[in-house]
Amino acid sequence: MTTRMYERDSVVRGVRVMELCHVRDSQRGDLMVIEFAQVLPFRPQRCFLTYAMSSGQVRGKHAHRECSQLLLSAHGTCRLLMDDGIRNEEIILDRPEIGVLVPPMVWTEVSGIRADSVLLVLASHVYDSADYIRDYAVFLQIIREAIYES
Amino acid sequence: MTTRMYERDSVVRGVRVMELCHVRDSQRGDLMVIEFAQVLPFRPQRCFLTYAMSSGQVRGKHAHRECSQLLLSAHGTCRLLMDDGIRNEEIILDRPEIGVLVPPMVWTEVSGIRADSVLLVLASHVYDSADYIRDYAVFLQIIREAIYES
Repeated sequence: MTTRMYERDSVVRGVRVMELCHVRDSQRGDLMVIEFAQVLPFRPQRCFLTYAMSSGQVRGKHAHRECSQLLLSAHGTCRLLMDDGIRNEEIILDRPEIGVLVPPMVWTEVSGIRADSVLLVLASHVYDSADYIRDYAVFLQIIREAIYES
Repeated sequence: MTTRMYERDSVVRGVRVMELCHVRDSQRGDLMVIEFAQVLPFRPQRCFLTYAMSSGQVRGKHAHRECSQLLLSAHGTCRLLMDDGIRNEEIILDRPEIGVLVPPMVWTEVSGIRADSVLLVLASHVYDSADYIRDYAVFLQIIREAIYES
């Protein structure tokens, strides 16, 4: 089992990029494993896949108030944009063993580079529409108010 | 959100085949969601992906003593063989929304139909090598002893 080769903080507040445990095996196929208690700062209650994305189409375009997520490319290549209202970073996810931990209050956008891209997300919370901030101006306003109050 | 279209018991003891919640969206891409508490009889502690499988190569070839799993194809097409020592069933997994719940003491083999097949597994337990039965003769012996004792 390959241990994590690297783990780094993004410039985006609270975002961590990590190499997940994986084994390369040209005979039997590759394996990537996430032991939740070892890797995640939360115990996931939900997972989802996005797939069959049209080229150039963007998903996400929201932030969560409470929910944290781990995002990775299960197949193909995705472009992941993260934005904390002050700094942003774009990451290309092109291998299942690269996971990105996204905390609450980070605006996220995902686009598939090709139609066969598959994004896997592990989420800390069950689905709750009230947890979503879908308006970027509202997101920025909440960020500004938090900075002003702190 | 599409509700589950079907859910059926396999002929293999304890195995259930279910259509998972999913949304088809030709514009934004498709979405498949698993709310763990709604769908799974366990709360997963681990997940893994197998990928870059050589054509014709077989993975798995073991049973678990305690661990339950949900298996699905995150991309491409996998052939899943399940065997409880008395009956067996082979299922072709070719869409992310088809999930197979496999309880303990079911011998399982997986083969990728193409090299770009990706299998996603949610597991009820952390990895423990002692939980694996990797010898089919031993597996059958344990099954026979359980039948004899019951």
